[in-house]
Amino acid sequence: MSGSKCVRLTGALVKQVLDSVDSVLFDCDGVIWRGDQAVPGAAQVINLLKEKGKKVFFVTNNSSKTRKMYVDKMTTLGFNVKEEEVFGTAYCSAMYLKTVCKLQGKVYLIGSNAMQQELEAVGIQPTGVGPDHISGKQGDWANVPLDPEVKAVVVGFDEHFSYMKLNRAMQYLSREGCLFVGTNRDTRLPLEGGKAVPGTGCLLQAVETAAQHRAQTVGKPNNFMFDCVASQFGVDPDRCLMVGDRLDTDIMLGSNCGLKTLLTLTGVSTVADAEDHQRSGSAERQGMVPDYYVESIADLLPALQG
Amino acid sequence: MSGSKCVRLTGALVKQVLDSVDSVLFDCDGVIWRGDQAVPGAAQVINLLKEKGKKVFFVTNNSSKTRKMYVDKMTTLGFNVKEEEVFGTAYCSAMYLKTVCKLQGKVYLIGSNAMQQELEAVGIQPTGVGPDHISGKQGDWANVPLDPEVKAVVVGFDEHFSYMKLNRAMQYLSREGCLFVGTNRDTRLPLEGGKAVPGTGCLLQAVETAAQHRAQTVGKPNNFMFDCVASQFGVDPDRCLMVGDRLDTDIMLGSNCGLKTLLTLTGVSTVADAEDHQRSGSAERQGMVPDYYVESIADLLPALQG
Repeated sequence: MSGSKCVRLTGALVKQVLDSVDSVLFDCDGVIWRGDQAVPGAAQVINLLKEKGKKVFFVTNNSSKTRKMYVDKMTTLGFNVKEEEVFGTAYCSAMYLKTVCKLQGKVYLIGSNAMQQELEAVGIQPTGVGPDHISGKQGDWANVPLDPEVKAVVVGFDEHFSYMKLNRAMQYLSREGCLFVGTNRDTRLPLEGGKAVPGTGCLLQAVETAAQHRAQTVGKPNNFMFDCVASQFGVDPDRCLMVGDRLDTDIMLGSNCGLKTLLTLTGVSTVADAEDHQRSGSAERQGMVPDYYVESIADLLPALQG
Repeated sequence: MSGSKCVRLTGALVKQVLDSVDSVLFDCDGVIWRGDQAVPGAAQVINLLKEKGKKVFFVTNNSSKTRKMYVDKMTTLGFNVKEEEVFGTAYCSAMYLKTVCKLQGKVYLIGSNAMQQELEAVGIQPTGVGPDHISGKQGDWANVPLDPEVKAVVVGFDEHFSYMKLNRAMQYLSREGCLFVGTNRDTRLPLEGGKAVPGTGCLLQAVETAAQHRAQTVGKPNNFMFDCVASQFGVDPDRCLMVGDRLDTDIMLGSNCGLKTLLTLTGVSTVADAEDHQRSGSAERQGMVPDYYVESIADLLPALQG
């Protein structure tokens, strides 16, 4: 294999790279699907990788689904997948609070029902999910009733995000020893047709600005997502490939963890973006240059079918 | 007068400084009042300054009141004040859009009824004020109906801030040529008893993160607040004193505009904060060192009564 980076993965090189790994980690949005549409050929690629004995995992910063919800969606789209292969930030944040923080207490949750379910599944009680509109006078807002058992504020994607939730998070975070965890910093959620809506990163920025300190984030590019997979399945970083559409999250995670990295062009980042990072003198930006790229993960099919 | 900075204003120096100026600009919150309570002696100080022929103005980053609402509050607290002497960011943002941006079109407003009224008073039509809860499915959010006449997004304090408002602002800002203006970047609104609630800066950060670009802000320390006063009343910066409780907004504004600066300790910043800035080698932080400080603006009373 060549020592250079950002090499187009094609021809005989595909099989060579796949032979060099035992495990493949896939991001979801922009990699195996876009919105509610599977990327053409993606299900075949995943299913063939598994038939050939590769371990396949899904690591996504999206916090709006439980493992079970992901399996349901993937099964509908033709993917052969089990719950324990799916690592979303709803599940991983719950694991982080339980295993790393060893949280004793409740969570004030800016997030979704899915996050609530994943927290409850590991025995953590969340509070705060659902609408929370403003009420009372400004003088009262700093005195909103707080649950004395809350020991952490967790921020994920929340379509009911509101000034009152922001205020409640700030009041909890001003109590001594309150943990502060975010699922991820993605600023936008890409949708079909080049459209997008605000991502969790926007909500987290608002809470961090109010709290005047930074949250610990669980999602990519933080190592925790990979550590979570590796500790449960004994994955060897040297023999693992990370496949994603974003340089700043997916490829960076791979670099941070010593994995081989593959950029697919069906999502957010472009080869030009990768080359900009490569040309920059910055050491940090080198971590955003993938080893390989493909137009689509369907480009892996011929090597798997051969 | 001494060439050193951050000097306690006391004794004969008070009269000397007051004699050297024709105009005095006061911040409001933490300077002349805290919440709904006047700082003891503040009304007397303001009223005596005016009796002695000084021009007095009020410059506040708070966007939740019209000029009229400020006059009503101040009159109740015993201050002798006229509407044209009050420069809040609700009024100044309207002036900025009209005179600097020369906006032709409507404003999508994340803000208060007061901001709506000030915009309407200069002939600009705002849209968006009041609750805007989430509805529909995620796939529809990027396609929310937008008003084709909207040519600017303005972000001020909004107790009804919501994910849907954030999303709507992002969709407007992704249209070409849409202006992006924030009232101010204050991260917290201090209340009585050392409490606080999230300030406009938190909401603005969320919108900026979603829009992936920075807003132009109108409030202190941006020169526009002073320019607005100076252009209407012919204020000479050399003979003007800025009085405030925050180093990063009030004192910085004074430094940016070449005014004399006075920190009062009834609000956010401390003398230790000022000394930290002074000791730092940073040129920018020197702008946050006031010329003088007082415990309270009541310390100006003896010189005015004598």
